[in-house]
Amino acid sequence: MKPELGVCYYPEHWPEEMWAKDATRMVETGLTWVRIGEFAWSRMEPTPGDLRFDWLDRAIEVLGSAGLKVVLGTPTATPPRWMLKKHPDMLAVDAQGQPRKFGSRRHYCFSHQGYIQECARIARIMGERYGRNPHVAAWQIDNEYGCHDTTISYSQAALRAFQHWLEAQYGSVDALNTAWGNVFWSMEYGSFDQIDLPNLTVTEPNPAHVLAFRRFSSDQVAIFNKAQVDVLRPLTDAPLLHNYMGRILDFDHFKVGEDLDIATWDSYPIGFLSDRLEVDEAHKTAFLQQGDPDMQAFHHDLYRAVGRGRWWVMEQQPGPVNWAPFNPAPLPGMVRLWSLEAVAHGAEVVSYFRWRQAPFAQEQMHAGLLTPNDKPAPALSEVRQTADDLAQLGTVTQTRADVAILFDYASDWAWQTQPQGAGFNYFRLVFSAYRALRRAGLSVDFLSTRDIPEPGYKLIFAPGLATLDSDLEHRLLQGCDLAILGPRSGAITRDFQIPKAGRPGLSGLSCDVDLVETLPPNVHRTVDGGGAARHWIDRLSGTAPDLLTFTDGTPALKGTDGLWYLAGFPDEHLWVWVVEMAAAKVKLDIHPLPEGLRRRETDQYVFLTNYTAAPINWNNHDIAPCDVVILKKNAPRKG
Amino acid sequence: MKPELGVCYYPEHWPEEMWAKDATRMVETGLTWVRIGEFAWSRMEPTPGDLRFDWLDRAIEVLGSAGLKVVLGTPTATPPRWMLKKHPDMLAVDAQGQPRKFGSRRHYCFSHQGYIQECARIARIMGERYGRNPHVAAWQIDNEYGCHDTTISYSQAALRAFQHWLEAQYGSVDALNTAWGNVFWSMEYGSFDQIDLPNLTVTEPNPAHVLAFRRFSSDQVAIFNKAQVDVLRPLTDAPLLHNYMGRILDFDHFKVGEDLDIATWDSYPIGFLSDRLEVDEAHKTAFLQQGDPDMQAFHHDLYRAVGRGRWWVMEQQPGPVNWAPFNPAPLPGMVRLWSLEAVAHGAEVVSYFRWRQAPFAQEQMHAGLLTPNDKPAPALSEVRQTADDLAQLGTVTQTRADVAILFDYASDWAWQTQPQGAGFNYFRLVFSAYRALRRAGLSVDFLSTRDIPEPGYKLIFAPGLATLDSDLEHRLLQGCDLAILGPRSGAITRDFQIPKAGRPGLSGLSCDVDLVETLPPNVHRTVDGGGAARHWIDRLSGTAPDLLTFTDGTPALKGTDGLWYLAGFPDEHLWVWVVEMAAAKVKLDIHPLPEGLRRRETDQYVFLTNYTAAPINWNNHDIAPCDVVILKKNAPRKG
Amino acid sequence: MKPELGVCYYPEHWPEEMWAKDATRMVETGLTWVRIGEFAWSRMEPTPGDLRFDWLDRAIEVLGSAGLKVVLGTPTATPPRWMLKKHPDMLAVDAQGQPRKFGSRRHYCFSHQGYIQECARIARIMGERYGRNPHVAAWQIDNEYGCHDTTISYSQAALRAFQHWLEAQYGSVDALNTAWGNVFWSMEYGSFDQIDLPNLTVTEPNPAHVLAFRRFSSDQVAIFNKAQVDVLRPLTDAPLLHNYMGRILDFDHFKVGEDLDIATWDSYPIGFLSDRLEVDEAHKTAFLQQGDPDMQAFHHDLYRAVGRGRWWVMEQQPGPVNWAPFNPAPLPGMVRLWSLEAVAHGAEVVSYFRWRQAPFAQEQMHAGLLTPNDKPAPALSEVRQTADDLAQLGTVTQTRADVAILFDYASDWAWQTQPQGAGFNYFRLVFSAYRALRRAGLSVDFLSTRDIPEPGYKLIFAPGLATLDSDLEHRLLQGCDLAILGPRSGAITRDFQIPKAGRPGLSGLSCDVDLVETLPPNVHRTVDGGGAARHWIDRLSGTAPDLLTFTDGTPALKGTDGLWYLAGFPDEHLWVWVVEMAAAKVKLDIHPLPEGLRRRETDQYVFLTNYTAAPINWNNHDIAPCDVVILKKNAPRKG
Repeated sequence: MKPELGVCYYPEHWPEEMWAKDATRMVETGLTWVRIGEFAWSRMEPTPGDLRFDWLDRAIEVLGSAGLKVVLGTPTATPPRWMLKKHPDMLAVDAQGQPRKFGSRRHYCFSHQGYIQECARIARIMGERYGRNPHVAAWQIDNEYGCHDTTISYSQAALRAFQHWLEAQYGSVDALNTAWGNVFWSMEYGSFDQIDLPNLTVTEPNPAHVLAFRRFSSDQVAIFNKAQVDVLRPLTDAPLLHNYMGRILDFDHFKVGEDLDIATWDSYPIGFLSDRLEVDEAHKTAFLQQGDPDMQAFHHDLYRAVGRGRWWVMEQQPGPVNWAPFNPAPLPGMVRLWSLEAVAHGAEVVSYFRWRQAPFAQEQMHAGLLTPNDKPAPALSEVRQTADDLAQLGTVTQTRADVAILFDYASDWAWQTQPQGAGFNYFRLVFSAYRALRRAGLSVDFLSTRDIPEPGYKLIFAPGLATLDSDLEHRLLQGCDLAILGPRSGAITRDFQIPKAGRPGLSGLSCDVDLVETLPPNVHRTVDGGGAARHWIDRLSGTAPDLLTFTDGTPALKGTDGLWYLAGFPDEHLWVWVVEMAAAKVKLDIHPLPEGLRRRETDQYVFLTNYTAAPINWNNHDIAPCDVVILKKNAPRKG
Repeated sequence: MKPELGVCYYPEHWPEEMWAKDATRMVETGLTWVRIGEFAWSRMEPTPGDLRFDWLDRAIEVLGSAGLKVVLGTPTATPPRWMLKKHPDMLAVDAQGQPRKFGSRRHYCFSHQGYIQECARIARIMGERYGRNPHVAAWQIDNEYGCHDTTISYSQAALRAFQHWLEAQYGSVDALNTAWGNVFWSMEYGSFDQIDLPNLTVTEPNPAHVLAFRRFSSDQVAIFNKAQVDVLRPLTDAPLLHNYMGRILDFDHFKVGEDLDIATWDSYPIGFLSDRLEVDEAHKTAFLQQGDPDMQAFHHDLYRAVGRGRWWVMEQQPGPVNWAPFNPAPLPGMVRLWSLEAVAHGAEVVSYFRWRQAPFAQEQMHAGLLTPNDKPAPALSEVRQTADDLAQLGTVTQTRADVAILFDYASDWAWQTQPQGAGFNYFRLVFSAYRALRRAGLSVDFLSTRDIPEPGYKLIFAPGLATLDSDLEHRLLQGCDLAILGPRSGAITRDFQIPKAGRPGLSGLSCDVDLVETLPPNVHRTVDGGGAARHWIDRLSGTAPDLLTFTDGTPALKGTDGLWYLAGFPDEHLWVWVVEMAAAKVKLDIHPLPEGLRRRETDQYVFLTNYTAAPINWNNHDIAPCDVVILKKNAPRKG
Repeated sequence: MKPELGVCYYPEHWPEEMWAKDATRMVETGLTWVRIGEFAWSRMEPTPGDLRFDWLDRAIEVLGSAGLKVVLGTPTATPPRWMLKKHPDMLAVDAQGQPRKFGSRRHYCFSHQGYIQECARIARIMGERYGRNPHVAAWQIDNEYGCHDTTISYSQAALRAFQHWLEAQYGSVDALNTAWGNVFWSMEYGSFDQIDLPNLTVTEPNPAHVLAFRRFSSDQVAIFNKAQVDVLRPLTDAPLLHNYMGRILDFDHFKVGEDLDIATWDSYPIGFLSDRLEVDEAHKTAFLQQGDPDMQAFHHDLYRAVGRGRWWVMEQQPGPVNWAPFNPAPLPGMVRLWSLEAVAHGAEVVSYFRWRQAPFAQEQMHAGLLTPNDKPAPALSEVRQTADDLAQLGTVTQTRADVAILFDYASDWAWQTQPQGAGFNYFRLVFSAYRALRRAGLSVDFLSTRDIPEPGYKLIFAPGLATLDSDLEHRLLQGCDLAILGPRSGAITRDFQIPKAGRPGLSGLSCDVDLVETLPPNVHRTVDGGGAARHWIDRLSGTAPDLLTFTDGTPALKGTDGLWYLAGFPDEHLWVWVVEMAAAKVKLDIHPLPEGLRRRETDQYVFLTNYTAAPINWNNHDIAPCDVVILKKNAPRKG
């Protein structure tokens, strides 16, 4: 696969006379893809039924005839104002019971049947018009599901849908009462229509109630998406995709991904570091203008799994953005570094957001490749350089990694529902494991719980995996030489009960969680020999050998040949140690890397990316600040 | 009185076939009491009027015939779902105007007449059925009044009840306008039905309005409780009790306690330290797995006063809980230490919460004496050991302490209504006094303002006592050799006005508050000779001698023979000094104790409890970490 | 102009028999003005139409005949309870959609026509009765517009008025759609009545929408005020005024000020330092009992501009207040210092709030000149001393300063609408410039954008001025020798778009903002030679010379002869440097001052105010702690 570059473009934002020049300039920059249409419903249909596609016809023609492949977006993330008049109850409702009003975007409830039908209608109209258009080479459905906390809605539409969903799940209300343990506080229901959404209760609602609502809410996203998929499939042969956001875990991306052909995501490294990562101040300052060295790769690898191998960056940050608490500019070289890193992880396309900075509305401070008055922004030349790099690279082929992480959206919902300790968070736990593997120079794959290949991996990590059953345990053990679970793995059933068989309930390891402790951030449980666990401690018993021990004598890691269980949330030091032990056990070479240097192997290349602002010499390779060195296997090559 | 042990049990949570074995095991553990029934309304009455008590009959029989005394709870803290259909307006309403919905517990407004009648109905049914049952040896009414901020409700029911309450208090609206000073901002009312609840105002409402609402809200709890008391009294001779929570001050426990026979409370030392005490990080870390050394004793002594000498711990933490920000496990020995400390303060019964950890619903991470899969949890053996200790101790008899603290719930409402300084809080002030007295090795009694015995105490402290009148001053002076008031004592009238006679308005001490200052936490007013005042400074004048002086020359403590007034909120150093001065004055021996060691005297014993994780040698006694040494007076004895 | 003193008094709060004695004592204290009436609507009109002015007649007579000049307030900040019955929809509504209820003050929406008419009615009744009363020497309309966040309301009345305002501004909804860039997210409207208020949207609303709403909300205050002005003008020759609050920027004070004769403001130095200034802890502690050394002067100078030269302090803090997080007492001397400082800046009257501390209602902990039980509070003697000082001073005449700051309320609205960096704030930026000028010993004038005199100033600073057009640029350049703009000056159009001509869009300076960065508080961009910029960085290009350079080589200050542009938000060090450079450029003498000393020049005097608690020797003048030294030009004189 030869990676390509693209850009996001909004012809409706600019005078038509600019389009042709823009298209030419895109091609000159080395771009081959252009995404359009995603927010333009009010221009496609200014009033109900008044369809205006002539401008879009011309835009596609201008762009396509310049040599660009078009990704056409359905505009369903931005219902026009008149839609609210037709469907006044279509708005999502927040946890305080307030409708989330018109005036920005994503103002709809995923459960509203009337709006789903409107979306299917506009998708059908577009599919019929452009499904066979030779320039339209891919379709994007909606935009950034779940962004702005929009997965969850407490609307009447959601309530009714939730009651039906529960009935389908449990059959009878007695079964539900038993499954949830509603006897606990006389919370037993007499019928499904008595069950409310789990907000505004006096104290915390039943976690089983909340988790069911979270599962339901995730399902509603998949159903919403599928309604447009079902309309478009017969009308086009072009691939269907969606652009996911970073660190949005409110719906099961694997499930939505099953209905699509390609997973794409929107990568804003500097915004994410400022806004979506709990790291210390020193780290934030060191990588302020580069982004966290693992955050992008984490999502690349995760979305590669969501797309079953096919994935893009749909929106790549090209300069300062508008939405983070602080918005510094990328250091010179970073836009190219981010692009090449995506390619190293298998991106088919890296597409920049956006072509030209808009001088108006919400994102007017969001940089593009051009400034609002049409001058080159700093990223433009880096993109041109990246295009040259790609031309030189030619085909980039992914290989299966030796190590995988099992990633499970429902575990995040579970642990958000019941954190038990204020510092405990699923994403942070998994991310800390991922970072440790990357610091060891390893390439990592992600797996869903439904998707463990056989023959498989040398190592699979499944930290914090809420629910385990014997089938999953079996597949895990078959799928790798060594599976590393814990802490908090297998801790609850799907209905949020402590499993009758105990925690983690493994048949392959004599290891029981007798008691759970959570700790404040300043308290660490040290491990004999170095390192410590934080936040969460499973106090373990069982006959499996203690591979590591806390200094108070309790087990920190228990394990047998193919299965280990970690008792706590490791700090960086302990993760390094666990990764080293595990690699030694399965005879896997590691490549410990200095701070800010990362390594990714493909079929023919090794990519070394230097996220720091200083030069690094590693293994006799000099990597300049914010630079990428691409080594042809057995032949070094400067990127 | 020979102290006993008990446990909280929920037969409805477990298969009936487990009950008998559970009962046997309880007895084997040394338990003699078992509390049941408190949340089981949906099982007693699954639909309106469909009464099902057969299971409860059998549960009482099984437990009782095993030799256990039953505390039977009325289930009124958890109205079933159908109750909401009958009384849709029974929900409490929060300060933002949102109904607090079904789905957890305590989902009722204390002012709702319909619900009060339902509670009286179920209490009557239970009283008629079990009032003379020989196994039912005590009744618990409802559960943890005020928990989850449920004392205060802004519902329509509360509004109507408040208007009637005001009319009863003030007679005429003109009297109310005058009492509140409503002329201030043209807030004068023309009729009682014009008076709203004091939420959602543009800026702060009149403090007189708020304080009246707080008094009213407290009264509603007492009325609610009394409705069940009145029903049960004729039907049973067993004592009636309620289980109060820790650091809940929203209603006057003395007032509720007057209608009951025994005060009990729910003691969660580790949860309280994490969640309900403003102490510094170092202290929180040092006592992370033990709880604060004074928090439990404070409540033991307070609830002994509320119960007029009769009190229990109804729920004793036996391991990690689920509800605090962080939930570590108690250090080995602490469950026994907490239990024996309660006994030292006069507990008739220490009852653990709960027998077996529930594997479902909200509290599934709350440890019990057994794990969810029926294995012994760490506390079980400590409870067994405690039972043995108690058998050896035999009778424990309380004696009146030499020192008392006047505790007044309404003062907390007043100072919450008008903190004036962000660091000022009634509980913190009183607790700091209590801690200083405990650090001096003294036993302490609590008194309500209505209950000052004569002949009385050597010392009575009344810090922050909002309202003083000449009668109370007279009783105080008669009740002790030396009364120590201030800061902020006698500062307002019952209607939240500055007294016309000035503050503190004492006839026995020439001491006037000319001006009040509040200080940020980092600013201390140092005292000549050492120590400092914080948060609050009453600038004093008057002819009474200055016993201590701030370094700026203003008085820090003024006093005469029997009455002292403290000008500020003392830091630890200053409290030590004041306690020493006062003890010297009244010829009271003190026993200064090292950090974490506490001492409590009963008729025949001296209890030394070591809250630290290190051994302590004090006065030639070695006290192991988390251990209790019980000295028979004139004969030491290892606990 | 000979400065005078006054006091705020509420005869309705006290028995009538106290009035005469109070009046006598006021005169004895050296006061000549007394403000009354502002909150007394419920006494003027206890029920609708039942007018009771006899008490007010007598109060005015008693005060006036004692020799006091009366400022009579209209009571429209405190509509009585019956008003709500007449106009149930008159309440303002908060951003969460909650009506802001009766029970305190300012409980009205500025857009409610019914209430505006009620205000005009009561103003007419008062004007007719007292407009020619010889004792009534000034009129205050309402009280503290905007206090308690009351400028902005999301009521139905505001919604309707906003739609009309938009129609008047834009003419057609298509023009509005274009001006706001509503195409961006399909936010285009079909009619004005489709436009909602910009609250409760899913993510941030269009900044153009928000800024329009902020402009509208400001206009509503001016309209509300003018309704009473229009009624009173024909009925009286006395000056009309309003008492503004400190750091309230939600409405354009210049616009309201245009309709009034005098600007007055309410100065609470210690409360402001505690509550309304983002300064570090050390600074807060150093000036805890004095207030910030520049906060009062800033407002004096600003309100002098708002009053077009005529201004008062209407409410001067005389002791601890009740409303700040912490409320310490002023150090001895500070009440006099604040008073004399106001006089130095041109105050015609300094009036204390309040005469006697009220023992009831919301402000019972707010000190007065007398205690609640009628004893002298500490401030009384300082006021008497100040009166003597003023008698000695005689006439104090203001002169135009050499330096001015352009102040623009709409810039604050713009940057609140779109902070872009969490640390960026218009007030903070302007205040930092002001402080730097004051530290250089300079007197400063403020200018509105509509009011730049010609011939003008040596220096005008216009940091963060959101919108610039060629006319304003022209007037700026004509109005001074050197204008210093930036950062973020000229950054948006009035409709919140990036100007087509680029930022800052100056014709007099070749300097373009290519890119904007915002930085976290701990990150500074250092400048070659010392100092740094924080929070905000405009990356500049253009042919204008770089006068200062960041250490990364990019411009920190560009400029030509008459026009400079600052690239970032200067820290204190950089401000000092820029002020020194600018002063040298325009040949302006500066007087660098030590920490806490400030200097203000009038026609005949130089005032030196020592805000510190330690003596200062400066230029051979000894200034005692909290003291003022007034130097007669060419002749020193101890104040």
